[in-house]
Amino acid sequence: MRVPAEPTVADLDEQELLARIFPHLPVGDATLVPPGDDAAVVATPDGRTVVTCDVLVEDVHFRRAWSTGHQVGLRAAAQNLADVAAMGARPTALVVGLVMPPTTPVAWVEALAAGLGDGCRPHGAGVVGGDLSSGPALMVAVTAFGDLEGRAPVLRSGARAGDVVAHAGRRGWSAAGLALLLAGQGGADDALVDAFRVPCPPLTAGVDAARAGATALMDVSDGLLRDAGRLARASGVTLDLADPCVAFDDDARRLAPAADLLGVDVREWLLAGGEDHGLLATFPAGAALPAPFVPVGRVLARAATDVLVEGARPAVGTSGWDHFRA
Amino acid sequence: MRVPAEPTVADLDEQELLARIFPHLPVGDATLVPPGDDAAVVATPDGRTVVTCDVLVEDVHFRRAWSTGHQVGLRAAAQNLADVAAMGARPTALVVGLVMPPTTPVAWVEALAAGLGDGCRPHGAGVVGGDLSSGPALMVAVTAFGDLEGRAPVLRSGARAGDVVAHAGRRGWSAAGLALLLAGQGGADDALVDAFRVPCPPLTAGVDAARAGATALMDVSDGLLRDAGRLARASGVTLDLADPCVAFDDDARRLAPAADLLGVDVREWLLAGGEDHGLLATFPAGAALPAPFVPVGRVLARAATDVLVEGARPAVGTSGWDHFRA
Repeated sequence: MRVPAEPTVADLDEQELLARIFPHLPVGDATLVPPGDDAAVVATPDGRTVVTCDVLVEDVHFRRAWSTGHQVGLRAAAQNLADVAAMGARPTALVVGLVMPPTTPVAWVEALAAGLGDGCRPHGAGVVGGDLSSGPALMVAVTAFGDLEGRAPVLRSGARAGDVVAHAGRRGWSAAGLALLLAGQGGADDALVDAFRVPCPPLTAGVDAARAGATALMDVSDGLLRDAGRLARASGVTLDLADPCVAFDDDARRLAPAADLLGVDVREWLLAGGEDHGLLATFPAGAALPAPFVPVGRVLARAATDVLVEGARPAVGTSGWDHFRA
Repeated sequence: MRVPAEPTVADLDEQELLARIFPHLPVGDATLVPPGDDAAVVATPDGRTVVTCDVLVEDVHFRRAWSTGHQVGLRAAAQNLADVAAMGARPTALVVGLVMPPTTPVAWVEALAAGLGDGCRPHGAGVVGGDLSSGPALMVAVTAFGDLEGRAPVLRSGARAGDVVAHAGRRGWSAAGLALLLAGQGGADDALVDAFRVPCPPLTAGVDAARAGATALMDVSDGLLRDAGRLARASGVTLDLADPCVAFDDDARRLAPAADLLGVDVREWLLAGGEDHGLLATFPAGAALPAPFVPVGRVLARAATDVLVEGARPAVGTSGWDHFRA
């Protein structure tokens, strides 16, 4: 008896493959001309549009052995929408360039589309276009758009001495989940491993921060210290962060058993762990921080160092993530 | 004596690589917040924006042995801006997701950036963002934006029986150039090989077609017959094309020596050749066609066949390009 092979993308032509993908994709509240023509048309009633682009590559950003297609789709949507939120904007749409080896199962592609759709739908954002190609590895290139709703974009460069530094979202969960997987201990804490597979950025907190008067705002993708350094340099200030085990006490407690299991200093994950896609913001002193922002430090006049922890140069976690170095 | 190795992207960190790339990229007339923050902000004074996405993958869409980085950059810009033009819009901006093996020479990446910039600059379009990643092959994922300037988008679905079918741009040059390269005869006609390496879409003709009242408009990327079939189905009509050797007489004459050399029927290139990124349009009968559009057929009421050539079902060139099939 012959077991039928799982259908791959090589078994379908482009139209047939698109017919499997389209039903999973939300049209989006702002979509005026949906996919199917040479280009889509998206409403931008503000007269400006926020634009960002992020690429996920198999065996660089995800492994098919570790993540389902649905999880990769959710992650691709989340990390792009996080960059939109980090401008203080509301996500409206995304487009997806998808490169696939001919051996890619059709079911994996459908799951990816469903994940992209599920990541966009709660925000009213549509998947308005894309391109399919064959290639030597799976690559998902997403471009996302956002609406500033009449507000000024909140840049990295607006922090001023005297401001409060605040953070919204998880810290260190993704790095801890990845460390567990790499150590073959993925079963020790499903929630942390899931946090690596699919980040949960506080997407609505970006607009809330803008409304509350945030002076600077950014997505934390490469680790708190490294991204805080970027904000500090862009603003011409120094950030003095509080003890991370106090500022992020809930996260520190949550990560402690995994850190003990792997013999890792939990501060390393809190300060240097990437891919959680929390939001780092600065607010004028005395401003009421919108939930779920918590105060994590203060802004000082520019000093010799971009970022301090409890007033001192940090001993761990300054390297972050670099794609091209071993 | 040791010859210094050519620097590769693995020799630079992300900031150093971006510092090599940014000087080549035009800011663009519509760019309000340039690259460097979480996202860019682009002006969309029309209240709508045209969005399209196209991916180029090494050894699928280009070979480094055949094309320089500058040529790949020009091509990536041109084919995306062609999709913007095919909506009747003016290109404003693009973003670029770039995946590179660590062995990629820095000089190749700089040349790619210069090609992207040179492809955008004449149109006032900016390169407003992007993402860099390592990966197993070179991949360039471009998303482009356009401004409708108050006009309705010109869709594929607007052709009506009685309209004139018109075409602007080259026909068959890219296919002929590729055929020469594949036959090892690239030296026989540099201009055709260059047309494969870098298409020259008639980008301003899209806006001109919209202003002249085009009823339907599309980019011809997969071959005239295949794309005309798409326009016919979207509009619920049949297109009756003229003899291609008459309608495209200049192209037919230009391609004849290469066709003779390779023993190819020049109609195959004219009808089925892809990647020239000409514009296919329909106009009301009697409309003055804006240059460089030429009449190439007429629109009939919907019949059993999407596309006819001189009233008959075409004998060649219906297959076009499919990515996942052998």
